[in-house]
Amino acid sequence: MERADLVIGIDFGTDSVRAVVVNAADGREEATDVCDYPRWKQGLYCDPAVNQFRHHPLDYIESMEAAVKGALAKLPPGTGERVAGIGVDTTGSTPCAVDREGRPLALKEEFATNPNAMFVLWKDHTAVRETEEINYYARNWGGRDFTCYEGGIYSSEWFWAKIMHVYRHDPQVQRAAYSWLELCDWIPALLTGAEDVHAIKRSRCAAGHKAMWHPDWGGLPDEEFLVLLEPALRGLRVRLYQETYTMDQKAGGLSQEWARRLGLRPGIAVAVGGFDAHMGAVGGGITKATLVKIMGTSTCDIMVASPEEVGGKLIKGICGQVDGSVLPGMIGLEAGQSAYGDVYAWFREILSWPLKTLFKKNPRLDEKTKDLLIAEVREKIFSALTREAMELAVDENSLLALDWLNGRRTPDADQSVKGALAGLTLGTTPAGIFRALVEATAFGARAIVDRFIEEGIAIEQVIAMGGIAKKNPFVMQVTADVLKMPIKVVRSEQACALGAAIFAAAAAGLYPSVYEAQARMASDFSEAYIPNGEKAEIYDRLYKKYLLLGRFVEDRF
Amino acid sequence: MERADLVIGIDFGTDSVRAVVVNAADGREEATDVCDYPRWKQGLYCDPAVNQFRHHPLDYIESMEAAVKGALAKLPPGTGERVAGIGVDTTGSTPCAVDREGRPLALKEEFATNPNAMFVLWKDHTAVRETEEINYYARNWGGRDFTCYEGGIYSSEWFWAKIMHVYRHDPQVQRAAYSWLELCDWIPALLTGAEDVHAIKRSRCAAGHKAMWHPDWGGLPDEEFLVLLEPALRGLRVRLYQETYTMDQKAGGLSQEWARRLGLRPGIAVAVGGFDAHMGAVGGGITKATLVKIMGTSTCDIMVASPEEVGGKLIKGICGQVDGSVLPGMIGLEAGQSAYGDVYAWFREILSWPLKTLFKKNPRLDEKTKDLLIAEVREKIFSALTREAMELAVDENSLLALDWLNGRRTPDADQSVKGALAGLTLGTTPAGIFRALVEATAFGARAIVDRFIEEGIAIEQVIAMGGIAKKNPFVMQVTADVLKMPIKVVRSEQACALGAAIFAAAAAGLYPSVYEAQARMASDFSEAYIPNGEKAEIYDRLYKKYLLLGRFVEDRF
Repeated sequence: MERADLVIGIDFGTDSVRAVVVNAADGREEATDVCDYPRWKQGLYCDPAVNQFRHHPLDYIESMEAAVKGALAKLPPGTGERVAGIGVDTTGSTPCAVDREGRPLALKEEFATNPNAMFVLWKDHTAVRETEEINYYARNWGGRDFTCYEGGIYSSEWFWAKIMHVYRHDPQVQRAAYSWLELCDWIPALLTGAEDVHAIKRSRCAAGHKAMWHPDWGGLPDEEFLVLLEPALRGLRVRLYQETYTMDQKAGGLSQEWARRLGLRPGIAVAVGGFDAHMGAVGGGITKATLVKIMGTSTCDIMVASPEEVGGKLIKGICGQVDGSVLPGMIGLEAGQSAYGDVYAWFREILSWPLKTLFKKNPRLDEKTKDLLIAEVREKIFSALTREAMELAVDENSLLALDWLNGRRTPDADQSVKGALAGLTLGTTPAGIFRALVEATAFGARAIVDRFIEEGIAIEQVIAMGGIAKKNPFVMQVTADVLKMPIKVVRSEQACALGAAIFAAAAAGLYPSVYEAQARMASDFSEAYIPNGEKAEIYDRLYKKYLLLGRFVEDRF
Repeated sequence: MERADLVIGIDFGTDSVRAVVVNAADGREEATDVCDYPRWKQGLYCDPAVNQFRHHPLDYIESMEAAVKGALAKLPPGTGERVAGIGVDTTGSTPCAVDREGRPLALKEEFATNPNAMFVLWKDHTAVRETEEINYYARNWGGRDFTCYEGGIYSSEWFWAKIMHVYRHDPQVQRAAYSWLELCDWIPALLTGAEDVHAIKRSRCAAGHKAMWHPDWGGLPDEEFLVLLEPALRGLRVRLYQETYTMDQKAGGLSQEWARRLGLRPGIAVAVGGFDAHMGAVGGGITKATLVKIMGTSTCDIMVASPEEVGGKLIKGICGQVDGSVLPGMIGLEAGQSAYGDVYAWFREILSWPLKTLFKKNPRLDEKTKDLLIAEVREKIFSALTREAMELAVDENSLLALDWLNGRRTPDADQSVKGALAGLTLGTTPAGIFRALVEATAFGARAIVDRFIEEGIAIEQVIAMGGIAKKNPFVMQVTADVLKMPIKVVRSEQACALGAAIFAAAAAGLYPSVYEAQARMASDFSEAYIPNGEKAEIYDRLYKKYLLLGRFVEDRF
């Protein structure tokens, strides 16, 4: 047998799962494969009209098996023998009702087609009403506010809201559910052949950020509070968990069955799971005084700080702070912007409206030609706007935008605030508006950075990943200028899976700790954006106006 | 000879002159003809890059002759004999350097092609620097502020700024210019064969609103002030005028030469001229407690109030107040919005940008087809936006716009203020933005109405004319809802020429005064927009937010 020098990171996304075989010595990605979820792809169990998005557990099982085998198949025969461990990251919060053995209910025949017995995907927003109740009672029930380490505002995308919603709408599932598992807890349980839900090691990352778990109150929120929220929750707390584990811990050894199915050795380490953003931050090289921004339609911002730096206090107005949710021994801090790329996409839709409606109806051309032309124009809008926007002088008296078109996640979550554009003239061009929108998202990023710094958490650099970071140098340069900090872009296209692989290496004992694993294996950077001093100074002044505009809109709209 | 029962109104516009033969008994328009200015149409003497717009006097002479003859030619032979008088309205301020005889210098051979010897069209903005100096000195020269009856802010579109600019840039014209005439003064002078510039009757309307003429200081501003502005102005004041005349006065009798050229009787009354907006207000039926809004790309708002109502005081923050500038014996009050239709046109240009740039470059179609398709889409944008905007509920929490995209004319002129949009979300549609822009222009109209009322000038109804009033029922209904006042739309498409004809009838003595002439001859109304009580109430609250947004943007941008 060759030396066990490889690890596998498995990244469960919204539409597909990706498996990456990584060299544990240096983090080199040896092979990768991606598999779509077959049922999801057919639109099964979902109802976008009411924001119901569910994943069947078989989608995960089948796709994972295919992706891991697909990746290994790209390497010489026998490579599976060299794998020392598996790490898993998933979207979240993505919980599922399970039985006493930890099996998702949808795997039983009677629940095989019941969406409420499946994983409730992070972006499922059916539990809006339940969320309002949680937020109301959290502040008014007379006891402590269990949302305080999750930013003080519970989200409809999270664990308890989803359980409440399922229980209220599906008594059958309620009766059959012994406990609940996050996807990032179930996959390691599945791979290690767990047969007792109480023995499954729960992820600190998921528990702390989404389930109001905290050592301050001995784990999950008090039974009394939960029952106040929903009587059907009675008794669930003790069937869930008290202990949680950081992702460098070993969840268990790979089961005989899964070793056979994947072509790996039985008993190799399977690490405790975690969320994609947190794992991605590690794969991208997160370290102290570094803000990791995962920049896409919205942003997820991750930091780590030593317990001394945080000093036992609550960082005001961020999304969450959980000891060990990113790296063991460090406080994981989560923040984010409700819209980043979505703000630009909104403007593209505004500009595309005449094409999509009036042009589309024009009888002069056939449908196919029109669709082609529309697609061609739409595809070029961003690059044309960017080209023009780059020509515009940065001017503190120019158009200023407020980026809260999807509410504000941090600092100080408020989904009801709205966006704005101030300083319009008859000479304002689409490129001018686009530039203002880009600047506004960068100002939103700065508000988060400033908040961390005000709260005593130093930030010296930014590491960026995600679609915007990789594809939009203009946005990235403006963001660097506004933040007055260098921004490094992670080279790896699969930093989340790489992060999972790093934790696999740690759990497998290939390194003394995940810190050493990360130091050797994390991705390097493909670009660095250095702030332009002159522009940064102008943006400094414009940012003050942004804050004033924000305060005005927040007070009045 | 038949009874002299007809009058002619001649309306000098930006691109063309219109002549209307009107029945003096009832204001019926018997025949009309329009003639473009031939040199202007070729772009001669203009430089849009520096906003230089000049009209050659021959353009006026030739087009006027053709238009009057063209209108008469549509009526039975001999109709010219029935004409009792001629009234003239023009754009303004549109002054020209003239010789001792009142002849525009460009009619002399040596100046025939010199733009500085021609009429400086209202929209010529070459005198921006001179305007800044006038405004600075008006407030700081130590004497009285001669701009006070013109809204306290002199415009680069006006008389003195244009003279200063020409004198500074053309010493030849400066030396040759004996005096200056507004177009509305020159045309009557021309038609009556005036041969002495001192004998030409100057229009109160032009003098009072644009040349800082006021009885308080014995006519034009002090020589000392004018020389401080520009030493070259020395001596000009006494070669201009001291007396001014209302438009119901007779400037003189039609000269033999012009009677022959036009096919009219010599000696018939030619009325003192005036500006198109003021004459149009009379043609549209202006009366006490009525705001006349001429609504196009921008608005010109005209009111009349009795001297008792004004009570000798200055109406704060409006554009001008001049005794007799509209109707004799009444104070003519002028206000306006810097952009109305232009705000919507701006948004159409924003939406058309992908078509005009990206689509236009697409190699798949030939140029002609693309131009045709672009034109078809552009033409439909407003109606499609309107259709969708009408479906949207009026909501005080919805998107709110500020209409100052071209600065603010009234109340409280400030060309530096800018527009805004507040309350944007990812769900904001083009129709939502369009609706907010329409509401914003209506709020701008309300701010003017409210200012008049605050200053003690009652307004009970609005009379509207112009392109927006005739063509856009949605905009008009929103405006009525916001103003909480009925808006009547003038039926005549040529209210300015009709107003000129009314003054011709008065000057010819066909009526005891212009009031009787107006009562019989003014246009009636084609539509009336009645405010919707429910929406008006919501708009009342939204208007308060508009004022707050305006104050914020004004303070910060």
